[in-house]
Amino acid sequence: MSTSTSNAVRRIVVAPRPLRIAVVAPPYFSVPPHAYGGVEAVVAGLVDTLVSHGHHVTLVAAGRNGTRAQEFVQTWADPPAHLLGGSIGEVINAARVLAGLRLDSVDLVHDHTLAGPLLAASRRVPTVVTVHGPLDELADVYRPLGRTVQLVAISRAQTRQAPELNWVGAVPNGIDVDSFPFRSRKDDYVLFLGRHHPTKAPHLAIAAAKAAGVRILLAAKCNEKVEHEYYEREIRPRLGDDVIDVGVADAARKRRLLAGARCLVFPVCWDKPFGLVMTEAMACGTPVVALARGAVPEVVAHGRTGFVVDRPDELAAAILRTHELDPAECRAWVGERFSLEAMSRGYERVYRTVLGAGVTASLSGLPVAGADGSRS
Amino acid sequence: MSTSTSNAVRRIVVAPRPLRIAVVAPPYFSVPPHAYGGVEAVVAGLVDTLVSHGHHVTLVAAGRNGTRAQEFVQTWADPPAHLLGGSIGEVINAARVLAGLRLDSVDLVHDHTLAGPLLAASRRVPTVVTVHGPLDELADVYRPLGRTVQLVAISRAQTRQAPELNWVGAVPNGIDVDSFPFRSRKDDYVLFLGRHHPTKAPHLAIAAAKAAGVRILLAAKCNEKVEHEYYEREIRPRLGDDVIDVGVADAARKRRLLAGARCLVFPVCWDKPFGLVMTEAMACGTPVVALARGAVPEVVAHGRTGFVVDRPDELAAAILRTHELDPAECRAWVGERFSLEAMSRGYERVYRTVLGAGVTASLSGLPVAGADGSRS
Repeated sequence: MSTSTSNAVRRIVVAPRPLRIAVVAPPYFSVPPHAYGGVEAVVAGLVDTLVSHGHHVTLVAAGRNGTRAQEFVQTWADPPAHLLGGSIGEVINAARVLAGLRLDSVDLVHDHTLAGPLLAASRRVPTVVTVHGPLDELADVYRPLGRTVQLVAISRAQTRQAPELNWVGAVPNGIDVDSFPFRSRKDDYVLFLGRHHPTKAPHLAIAAAKAAGVRILLAAKCNEKVEHEYYEREIRPRLGDDVIDVGVADAARKRRLLAGARCLVFPVCWDKPFGLVMTEAMACGTPVVALARGAVPEVVAHGRTGFVVDRPDELAAAILRTHELDPAECRAWVGERFSLEAMSRGYERVYRTVLGAGVTASLSGLPVAGADGSRS
Repeated sequence: MSTSTSNAVRRIVVAPRPLRIAVVAPPYFSVPPHAYGGVEAVVAGLVDTLVSHGHHVTLVAAGRNGTRAQEFVQTWADPPAHLLGGSIGEVINAARVLAGLRLDSVDLVHDHTLAGPLLAASRRVPTVVTVHGPLDELADVYRPLGRTVQLVAISRAQTRQAPELNWVGAVPNGIDVDSFPFRSRKDDYVLFLGRHHPTKAPHLAIAAAKAAGVRILLAAKCNEKVEHEYYEREIRPRLGDDVIDVGVADAARKRRLLAGARCLVFPVCWDKPFGLVMTEAMACGTPVVALARGAVPEVVAHGRTGFVVDRPDELAAAILRTHELDPAECRAWVGERFSLEAMSRGYERVYRTVLGAGVTASLSGLPVAGADGSRS
């Protein structure tokens, strides 16, 4: 440390104290996941980045510790995928978290599960909870839990769906940008990537591509009953030389398809709280043409990394304008806002806010009993 | 108060202090239930009897307060039967219990739900939990919860299935004996009552009745896929003049069928922790012929209220001996052991044991982390 003059005030930059964070993952898939498992992928990326930032992380998950977490609490020897959707897996998982996670050596718990937040009221340290799912049902979980849980949204749009909840921040999901190939020269197709489902609306993407006169490739999951029915009704009759079903894509093929596309068409028909595929497209230098639902206007920088329009009949004109956008700017935008680094910095800010506020979970943090949970 | 002699020690019988008990019911059906809902029926009977014994009861349930509980915390305005089986209903229910149930005016919480026990560690008062289901999955919930929960089995056989759990008692389920008609003169049939399912094994009941040369009536549920398949394979081919399918029975018909039968045949093929229908039969003065699985040897007094045998091929001989048994003794046995009164007294003993032991739920009551929930 040196100062330029003898009477200068000595300025010491103190690196913030590293934190001790317990991250609780859902048990149904490995962390990171082998294939399916969006939340598990986010958790793995967060854990590794927090460790790289000097923090001490305890991961609570099923299977082996596939991350850089310094400590690991195993909930199941093998992820119990067969319990997904039922109640028993959630409750067993929370019970094992209660038993296995020693709180004397952590500053806070960051929970990514459904039943885990029920434990918050029993802890002396704060419980931060990321709301990964839609709030139409989940708000009924978090509303009665009141200030015992510190909620983090995955978009600002999500917080607006239930502004009465105890939000402490909004941190967009992050992706490993380096794992996505950047291409500035594009092939002559637009891409729909997702699943064959009315809310994902590939039929609107097809209509837009046809109106724009460009070829569209459909790479989408189609194995549930509702997906099959939708596909037979809305997609199969529209297939042709310029509407090509390429089936569901694995990780490598997904990246090739994204990188080569003129744009990703994302005609989502519900207020989705986030949309990871949009960030993946932009990371490849591929702009996004999307409807303005849910988090879309936050994820896509309209006029810079894509076009966000209000009506399906505006999608075609937007597709024809994507050549005006700079692929490098698309990728830079993701690095800035939707990288693992950005996500991790976002959560570190949340952790320090919560700890700085002296939040302690306790029953005094419960809301006054209302219509549900009221006494008579 | 009088004493016979002046120097006699004055003996004052002090009535035990009334307790303040919060009873938490599952939310999916009304309490008491309109039709289906075994746990809800038990809860309603317990609540009403506790109140009649002078206790102050707070019922936590969905819908209206259909009991004599002095206080009521409503979790849903209408029971959310559509959420049964999924995880969200359990978690919302527990969150609403946390928010709605004020603990400053109760001595203990008696929980009958799946996720509710996760809240025990946050309470200053003890949480008594009745284990209503089979332990093959539920033991994984209660084992990590350790001494934060005070477990009550519905039979001693159930405790033997997982002796390592924190059992504080075994209290058999009770029925409203007066609601069952007593008949000492029987008609000439034996009865199977339950559902068409391999584990309930009506095919064994049919074989036994045929071997004994007596007519059998089958009154059983058959609307799930597994029930239909079993019925077509095992039951339909065996129907005839002496094997009569009378369909599923409502409450009134069930009572008529039970009261008129020479005996109930209960060839259960798994270690069922209890069997309410056996107590209902005996309440009608109808003995029970059953296989010695699970709680059966505790529920049926072998040689007095029925016969408990080890092998299916012994059932026929037992059926032919049921005329030796006294219907009045069957009913008296239920009044003594399996009435609402007996159940309520059993739980009152448990409550006083738990409160007398000064049990307080806390994290110090957790087990040492083992194979599941272990650290590395």
